[in-house]
Amino acid sequence: MSTKKFILTERDIPTAWYNIVADMTNKPLPMMDPKTKQPVTEESLQQIFAKELVKQELNTTDAWIEIPEPVRDLYKIWRPTPLVRATGLEKALDTPAHIYFKNESVSPVGSHKLNSALAQAYYCKQDGCTNITTETGAGQWGAALSMASKIFGLELAVYMVKVSYHQKPYRRSIMQTFGAQVIASPSMSTKAGRKILTDTPNNQGSLGCAISEAVELAMQTPNCKYTLGSVFNWVNLHQTVIGLEAEKQMEMAGEYPDSIIACFGGGSNFSGIAFPFLRHKLTDGKDVEVIAAEPASCPKLSKGRFQYDFGDEAGYTPLIPMYTLGHKFMPSNIHAGGLRFHGAGSIVSQLQKNGLMRAEDVNQLEAFDAATLFAKSEGIIPAPESSHAIAVAIRKALKAKEEGRKEVILFNLSGHGLIDMAAYDSYIAGDLTVGGVSDEDIARNLKSVEEFRI
Amino acid sequence: MSTKKFILTERDIPTAWYNIVADMTNKPLPMMDPKTKQPVTEESLQQIFAKELVKQELNTTDAWIEIPEPVRDLYKIWRPTPLVRATGLEKALDTPAHIYFKNESVSPVGSHKLNSALAQAYYCKQDGCTNITTETGAGQWGAALSMASKIFGLELAVYMVKVSYHQKPYRRSIMQTFGAQVIASPSMSTKAGRKILTDTPNNQGSLGCAISEAVELAMQTPNCKYTLGSVFNWVNLHQTVIGLEAEKQMEMAGEYPDSIIACFGGGSNFSGIAFPFLRHKLTDGKDVEVIAAEPASCPKLSKGRFQYDFGDEAGYTPLIPMYTLGHKFMPSNIHAGGLRFHGAGSIVSQLQKNGLMRAEDVNQLEAFDAATLFAKSEGIIPAPESSHAIAVAIRKALKAKEEGRKEVILFNLSGHGLIDMAAYDSYIAGDLTVGGVSDEDIARNLKSVEEFRI
Repeated sequence: MSTKKFILTERDIPTAWYNIVADMTNKPLPMMDPKTKQPVTEESLQQIFAKELVKQELNTTDAWIEIPEPVRDLYKIWRPTPLVRATGLEKALDTPAHIYFKNESVSPVGSHKLNSALAQAYYCKQDGCTNITTETGAGQWGAALSMASKIFGLELAVYMVKVSYHQKPYRRSIMQTFGAQVIASPSMSTKAGRKILTDTPNNQGSLGCAISEAVELAMQTPNCKYTLGSVFNWVNLHQTVIGLEAEKQMEMAGEYPDSIIACFGGGSNFSGIAFPFLRHKLTDGKDVEVIAAEPASCPKLSKGRFQYDFGDEAGYTPLIPMYTLGHKFMPSNIHAGGLRFHGAGSIVSQLQKNGLMRAEDVNQLEAFDAATLFAKSEGIIPAPESSHAIAVAIRKALKAKEEGRKEVILFNLSGHGLIDMAAYDSYIAGDLTVGGVSDEDIARNLKSVEEFRI
Repeated sequence: MSTKKFILTERDIPTAWYNIVADMTNKPLPMMDPKTKQPVTEESLQQIFAKELVKQELNTTDAWIEIPEPVRDLYKIWRPTPLVRATGLEKALDTPAHIYFKNESVSPVGSHKLNSALAQAYYCKQDGCTNITTETGAGQWGAALSMASKIFGLELAVYMVKVSYHQKPYRRSIMQTFGAQVIASPSMSTKAGRKILTDTPNNQGSLGCAISEAVELAMQTPNCKYTLGSVFNWVNLHQTVIGLEAEKQMEMAGEYPDSIIACFGGGSNFSGIAFPFLRHKLTDGKDVEVIAAEPASCPKLSKGRFQYDFGDEAGYTPLIPMYTLGHKFMPSNIHAGGLRFHGAGSIVSQLQKNGLMRAEDVNQLEAFDAATLFAKSEGIIPAPESSHAIAVAIRKALKAKEEGRKEVILFNLSGHGLIDMAAYDSYIAGDLTVGGVSDEDIARNLKSVEEFRI
């Protein structure tokens, strides 16, 4: 097992988040109002989202956005997180590659999600909110926001995707222990949920659908804003503390990554680790290969289409320019609930369009093979989501071995899997499905969003 | 929430464990062979336990025992652990007390148990073992030893107390993910288990019973030793890294604890945090109040009797001089499975007998009230075991408030409760029983061990 850790002090916690949009030559297209087909205005977004978050969403000029002192102070609860050289995994693979991982699983709620949850709860409080709503897949975001809401004295309602609600009951319990209200989605409590349940009574939910429900509740509740754990620019922004720390830590290790890998659901942990390194690619021409590890069951970057689409199932959000599988896409019930989202967000989509990154997809069995090897060689049981990144890191390390060359690989361990042990049980019992999606399914779903093609 | 952490570097990981017996004026009585009624010999213990562990058990002269380099190196995986000033909890209690906790929950398996698991697996490997056995209650020890066994290439069989096996299925899965074999105890696979199941078919098990089964399997397996996660002197010894680090960290904080609190099952985390501070009480006369937080369902220190007794249900172990409720005592099915042990071990029992420490008992509801307040104010969901320590710390802090005086309180957060969320669910639903034991039950059980009275 690895004992090579690179540890920073509290002084090294970044004082500003990195806004990659400012450095992009080809900036993302603007989000569009579905009714007017015009770029959304600050005012219209502020009906749903906290003011400062909307400003961050639309900021295309400032590369650095100061982290409010109360938020940075709260980061000290668990940050800086360790960077670890995975010597145990390297040995198990017998590879000349050097594998590093940034360990975001050490946060009290078990994932990187707290980086943005604290910021979003803070800004909502600043805005005079008493209540907030959100959606969650596997529950990592919901758990983080429950803790953050408690800190800032906000009442929180979480729509948790039904399949995860049943697969991961302990994450529901964690949210409830922090005092949040958790509703399985689709639910009868919203118009969006009722419609889906009426059309498909056994519907197990998706992130897209849970977002619709959470947005609807926020719109109907006084002093309430909607928050979300991925996809939007401000979430990516807040997560850059991961990569900014990792940059310093790689320097301590005396190496620079040849490749950076992170799992990909809506882009939050991916952007967090990748953007600070992509900054050098954009500004100093320092090369690095950046790979998003998608589930084979929800491969929007690998097999989706770049166009405008809604961020949610019911079509409450603005139209986002992004790689998408269609906002009505219903992924298979894989255990990596955090990756079951149909779209990729506008920044990441633009980066991929411009060839600054690429995606690889991983099926559920390969992800759990990788997870188990990692657990046995590094002592940490990874979240099913993070296991996709591990799987791609292993592919790279084995390729380096085959080609007899050193390669420096950095991946983000976005969370631990201690609440996901039922998934490991299925894997051990040989019951786990491989997952995936047919080309016909993708084509059918994309057909339903033809009208938003660019 | 608290962001006041005191962080050490890898260089600060202790190089030697502290053996408190060397500094005790009234040393513990020797363990006895139940057949000969003579002190046990090194040779007889070595039939069950690794040689070096037996030496540590019987060492009454060396105050410092060097930590083998490979073990100390593995400690770097997660050590040093943080010391945290619980300002969030202080605020919630509105107390003038300063509350500190040593956060042992940050280990990859979620508790302090890894401190001794790595050492025991190392010594068993040194001894030429290919297989080891153990028992586990809530599964914290079993999970830690599963990870340690994987590191040293040992095959591990774990007898997990049946009530916990069903209450905490995810800890079973964690052990299995690391490659261990897990058997619910009492089982039909051993003579001891069969006897209990025949006498009481619905028996939900106890640590004492699981120990019997694990010892029996070890005795019948070639190249196999038995290991255990608490009670014995060497376990307490290995855990002193906790207190040795905490000593340095309290110095960084510029305070010295007036009271030290830890939950108490067999004594491992308690000894770990307390012994290094008791050292000063023994050698420099530096006063500190030391309190063991017991579950009201298993109050051996508060209501047990000091005498010789077996460490296990079937009577395979030597007779240990300790506070006990009788080795056939079957505690109620509280969720703090790690505290369901009938005896206190010889060192702690002697310390209590000599007035160097005391115990308080906590019922299950008070423990979960404390756990939930802690989660909401500090962001960490504590293990049900650790919650007993938090409950006593809260009692102390409220007393200090009542009396209007400052008090410096240090408790050990022995583990997190992320695998124990079913218990929190019961608590939230109002289904949790208060726990406890009647005086008649204790009297009846003590009567059955009259023959071993001192």
